Order: sequence, then C-alpha cells, then structure tokens
Amino acid sequence: MINQQKYPSILLENVVEEFSKLPGIGKKTALRFALYLLKNELIESENLGNAILKFRTEVNHCQICHNVCDDTVCEICNSNKRDNSIVCVVENVADVMAIENTQQFKGLYHVLGGVISPMNGVSPTDLEIASLVSRVAGGGIKEVILALSPDMEGDTTCLYIYKKLAQFNIDISTIARGVSVGDSLEYADEITLGRSIVNRVKYSYEL
Amino acid sequence: MINQQKYPSILLENVVEEFSKLPGIGKKTALRFALYLLKNELIESENLGNAILKFRTEVNHCQICHNVCDDTVCEICNSNKRDNSIVCVVENVADVMAIENTQQFKGLYHVLGGVISPMNGVSPTDLEIASLVSRVAGGGIKEVILALSPDMEGDTTCLYIYKKLAQFNIDISTIARGVSVGDSLEYADEITLGRSIVNRVKYSYEL
Repeated sequence: MINQQKYPSILLENVVEEFSKLPGIGKKTALRFALYLLKNELIESENLGNAILKFRTEVNHCQICHNVCDDTVCEICNSNKRDNSIVCVVENVADVMAIENTQQFKGLYHVLGGVISPMNGVSPTDLEIASLVSRVAGGGIKEVILALSPDMEGDTTCLYIYKKLAQFNIDISTIARGVSVGDSLEYADEITLGRSIVNRVKYSYEL
Repeated sequence: MINQQKYPSILLENVVEEFSKLPGIGKKTALRFALYLLKNELIESENLGNAILKFRTEVNHCQICHNVCDDTVCEICNSNKRDNSIVCVVENVADVMAIENTQQFKGLYHVLGGVISPMNGVSPTDLEIASLVSRVAGGGIKEVILALSPDMEGDTTCLYIYKKLAQFNIDISTIARGVSVGDSLEYADEITLGRSIVNRVKYSYEL
C-alpha cells in the first residue's frame, strides 16, 4: 500500500503530501520535486513558497469579466482598442490566454470560474452567471460567444446560459467544432466529423 | 515564442514561472497548478507554500549517513536492529526509500547527494565521498555496496569510490544488473541481457 511508504523525515513527508495534491502529481513526482528543492539553493525554495502564498492571497479578480488581474479592472476590459459589444464566455483564465494567443478575437471576456457540474458539487450559483446576465442587461452588448469545452458539463452550462440570455435581444453563438487544421478526415472522431459536416461553411479561397 | 505568452496578472506569471522550474513541469502544467490553487481554499495554498519553506529551511541531514531526517542522526543509523557492518552507498533519499521498501536490506546507508558529473559541474568534493572514506577508516565496516544508477555518471562515481576504498580490507560490491523479474528475454536490451549472462548465479529452487 502506498500509505505505508515510510519517509525518513516528517518535513519531507509533509512537502511530498502537499505537492501530491496538485493535479496530475503522484507521490513519486512529488518526491522528485522535494529532492530538486533540496539540491538547489535556499532562495529557489523561498521564491516558490512565497510566490504561491502571495499569488493566492493577493491576486484580484476583474470586477467586470472576473479574470484574474492585479487591479480592480483587468487590462482587456480597460482597453479602448477592444470591441465591447462582443463578450466571449469562457471557463477560466487559461482559456482567455489561449484565445488571446490566437489574436483572432478583439472583444471582451467573461470568466465563469468553472462549469456546471452536479457531480463535483458545482451549481450555477457558484459561477459568474448572474453577473453575466446583469452585464448583458446593462446594455451595449450585441453578441455573446459561448466558448466552453465540448463535453457534457460544458454543453449543460451553455444551455443554462442560453436560457438565461434568451430574453435579451442579442446574438448568442458558440465556437465552431470541426476537424482540426492539419488533421486528416480518416482519423477524426465521428462526432467531430459529423458536426463539421452539419455546420459546413461556404467555400472561400481566402480561408 | 513561449516568452511572449501574456499573463493577465504579474502574481500569476510569477507563480507559473516558479512552478515551471520544477523538474518535468512546463508552463502549461504550471498554469494548471496555479488555477488549481485558485479554485481551492486559501488554506491549501498556505499549506503548500509553508511546507516548502519549512522543508527547505528546517530539514536536517543525518551526521552519519547524510540522509534527510528531523534529528541529528536518522532512525536507520540509530536503530539497534540493523547490521552496521554493511553500508549501502546511494545517490539520494529516494533510493534509500526504494531499497527500504524491498525489505531485503538490513544494513546502513550512505547518501552521496548526487553522482560525479563534470557536465553538470558536480565534482567528487561536492558529494559525501570524503565522509564515506573516513566512515570506513573508522573501522567496523566489512562490506560497502555501491548501488548507483547504471549510467556513465554512476559508473564513474563507482570507480572513483572503489579506488578510494581499495586501501581498506573490506568487500566492495555493486547491486546485480540483469533481466527484471517478470520480463521476457526477447524484450530485454542487449547490455542488460549480456550482463545477466556474464553474472549468472548458481541455480537454486529456493529463489
């Protein structure tokens, strides 16, 4: 049994225990992290430990889009170069960063902080959905793009938000699902290939 | 370029930067760690941050075997149930734990803290080799087992230690290399299979 693993030091056992709570990290990798810290200078460990403590206690969330930021309002919401009539709804900050990296979107974001998941005890009130509705109700928004993961929880969340926003006179869209650029049709899964046929777009040699 | 990745918060960027210094962790995994901390309670981050700081500043090394421990001498060196005439030389604490798990060794250890590696700037004086020599010179040790990794650096370190200990009247052995229990010969690499033939042992139906 893995619990019977005996550590020569309680301090080592504690740090391995804490590292192994991180997603995807088991006891062996956690032990490697601890040995890495031990081999390197004290300052490395201090930087890591303090960065974790500082991040969790001091980081803010943008009052408008709820993305993490250092001020009360984030750079994107504050920018006058963005189209504030389009709002892209995403699960978390990693999704914002991924979409920003494409440089294809110049609107604003709304970060839900998760997706509806009864299995994990996440209900709509745990997410930034009410704030999205009041943001849309405030006026000025013409389109909401739902950019959530294409799984059951993402789809449930999309439907829930769609119903909440149906009362407003705005466009509601989702990001296109289809065969990835560079992928061969042969290896695409059936659902993706099916969706990409149903949602086919007019041929244009500009694309 | 990965350096051009833009983070919405400097605190987030710092914690991702620090996490990604851990072995085998890239920026994407580091970001997942940060998001995990953000989603969970503050106490989780505090526990992790403090465990790291406490581990690195307060952990001791055993005065005899140089394994990590909480006292001045570790439990293994302190035990009166161990055979203190046999010393197993290993690279680090993870190796001690792996050998202890086998329950096949009842001697003591000597933790070098690394292996000789000119490429990484690790010379014999950076390791606990001098302390091993004086431990053997102190008397009472009949056998030293060299249990280092079977690669160039491990072999170099073995040879270096062997030369240092050759002056003493003790047995010096290395752990057996061979085909793993359960492995089929067909898939064993040539060097391993070769060594296991050269170092064959007398057949016994007790094994």
